[in-house]
Amino acid sequence: MDGTSPNKLKVAYLGPMASYSHQAALACFDNEEYLLEAQSQIKDAFAAVQAANGSDFAVVPFENSTYGTVVFTLDQFVDQESKYPDLLVCGELYLPVHHCLVGHASKRRSANLSQEHVWDDDNQMQANCNPKRSSTLMKGLQHVSMIYSHPAAFGQCEQFLSLYLKGVRKQEVSSTSRAAEMVAEEGPGSRSAAISSSLAADIHGLQLLAESIQDQDDNSTRFFVLKNGKSNPRGLAPSPRQPSNTNGDKWKTLVSFTLPQQPSGTLAEVLQIFKNHGLNLTSINSRPSLEHTWHYVFLIEVQGRRDEADGGAMNQALKELDTKTKGWKWLGSWRDRSPT
Amino acid sequence: MDGTSPNKLKVAYLGPMASYSHQAALACFDNEEYLLEAQSQIKDAFAAVQAANGSDFAVVPFENSTYGTVVFTLDQFVDQESKYPDLLVCGELYLPVHHCLVGHASKRRSANLSQEHVWDDDNQMQANCNPKRSSTLMKGLQHVSMIYSHPAAFGQCEQFLSLYLKGVRKQEVSSTSRAAEMVAEEGPGSRSAAISSSLAADIHGLQLLAESIQDQDDNSTRFFVLKNGKSNPRGLAPSPRQPSNTNGDKWKTLVSFTLPQQPSGTLAEVLQIFKNHGLNLTSINSRPSLEHTWHYVFLIEVQGRRDEADGGAMNQALKELDTKTKGWKWLGSWRDRSPT
Repeated sequence: MDGTSPNKLKVAYLGPMASYSHQAALACFDNEEYLLEAQSQIKDAFAAVQAANGSDFAVVPFENSTYGTVVFTLDQFVDQESKYPDLLVCGELYLPVHHCLVGHASKRRSANLSQEHVWDDDNQMQANCNPKRSSTLMKGLQHVSMIYSHPAAFGQCEQFLSLYLKGVRKQEVSSTSRAAEMVAEEGPGSRSAAISSSLAADIHGLQLLAESIQDQDDNSTRFFVLKNGKSNPRGLAPSPRQPSNTNGDKWKTLVSFTLPQQPSGTLAEVLQIFKNHGLNLTSINSRPSLEHTWHYVFLIEVQGRRDEADGGAMNQALKELDTKTKGWKWLGSWRDRSPT
Repeated sequence: MDGTSPNKLKVAYLGPMASYSHQAALACFDNEEYLLEAQSQIKDAFAAVQAANGSDFAVVPFENSTYGTVVFTLDQFVDQESKYPDLLVCGELYLPVHHCLVGHASKRRSANLSQEHVWDDDNQMQANCNPKRSSTLMKGLQHVSMIYSHPAAFGQCEQFLSLYLKGVRKQEVSSTSRAAEMVAEEGPGSRSAAISSSLAADIHGLQLLAESIQDQDDNSTRFFVLKNGKSNPRGLAPSPRQPSNTNGDKWKTLVSFTLPQQPSGTLAEVLQIFKNHGLNLTSINSRPSLEHTWHYVFLIEVQGRRDEADGGAMNQALKELDTKTKGWKWLGSWRDRSPT
């Protein structure tokens, strides 16, 4: 952060420093031009963008390819208490997520190596327990008696953990980078390890005990970039600085809606509205609305763009939602960055 | 459990004893007629029903009205490794969930009561911080310095915790009943408390520090009853012993499906199939399929029944899924017990 540059645009991200959200923010927002500010919770990142004189943008995780949707982020979009009336998605970013086991290497080689798991500090071992994944063990793990990480990271590394660290105690903490920080705080004699990024290991002075330990080699997380639609109605997230092949000439739109209490098939009818206008549905999620028991808010993503300047297909489809929903909210349109 | 009655049908439930799943199991399956067996994880309950000579039924949580779907249960239905080919839902149960704060009462009245939170052991205080909820404080909470519970229970009691126990450390554990057990193990001098059912407090000899602390008064959890469709193709869960007004003459069906990689609007088309047959969609969830990155399995519930004996609307609709999906699986039909 740079307190000497008050004119920089501010970008909130889910911290602490070295989190995957931080890496996603750095991929879009140049540290030289933007002031990146860590937030301790997803809801704080939403609140920072809503606040007058708050952040100009925020970067939050939306879904992981192995673990699924981030429920905390969905619930901020549901926004049951209307805390974020002006918040809109204005960009997305797909970040490959390669988890590492990080910690303090054991001082001595254990005499207790099983034949199956032979390793050597000089000759890294490929542990191919799944055709979709190849982990690399860098150090012995026999001394590890406790693992810290975020619940989602535990969920993404189940095969590695059951193969190499079966029965070792797990402690869930608020983020993978906080997990690395805790191991660093325990000092060199600690028998704890963390599942985190290699960046977090670098920052906290930890060693890589194993690399690429996620169940799926192509594990990745999709992040949304948020803005305040009232103070910055036409703003879009900058393009990622290292773009891969993407659908960037296409657009996506996020919409939430609720149905009347007697649905009579209206979810199918709402989705059919978009289809009738040639707009493809790319994701659907539901969360409790808390208006009534067993009543839901649906969040859908549809290919296409709402543009006030024209009367295009999306604008027409959204107008028709009035007839089939109890209520609906446009939550932003942005360039599709999904890998092709 | 009763080892003297080997002929009793066996019912697996997500334990430990006194869990909400145990209460749900007891509501359907009489302890005199059935042998109820605790399982330590949701996947163990699924495996028990799949196994030859395993359990005849299992009771697992599917969704909570405040906190949403139970992802661990969804992922067992997705069944990426085809571990449960014969598993079918054969019943459902809606259980009101009233959480309590349970622990050891403080030995002395604290002198540090704020005016806002005055309480008296003889005159219970109603804490109305939300029109949908009224908690009852039974004891002082000033001594509580640590709270154990399941993550879902923390999520269902956020308002109570932020009002009365702001800043108190929280430790996530595998179930609410395990949380109560841990507090009991710490003994009478412990400053820990658990969020659990009052039944768990009874069983573990703990006191109720506060009752009905969930954010929503009508908080409830929906459980599924599972069976093995191969060994018990026509079996249905017994009716709950204290039935409320329900839609019990109607049926529901659970189906999972995946879409081709180039969806071209086919999710809307799949849902339209059911609508065309007059079958109402009541829930939709999606999870990563893990076949390809950003490819999903959809799980839908539809009103209606698959019945091999007739060619009814559901049977016809399911046949049409072949034309629009990459693959699909019928996961059971059961009597609708949703509250009317």
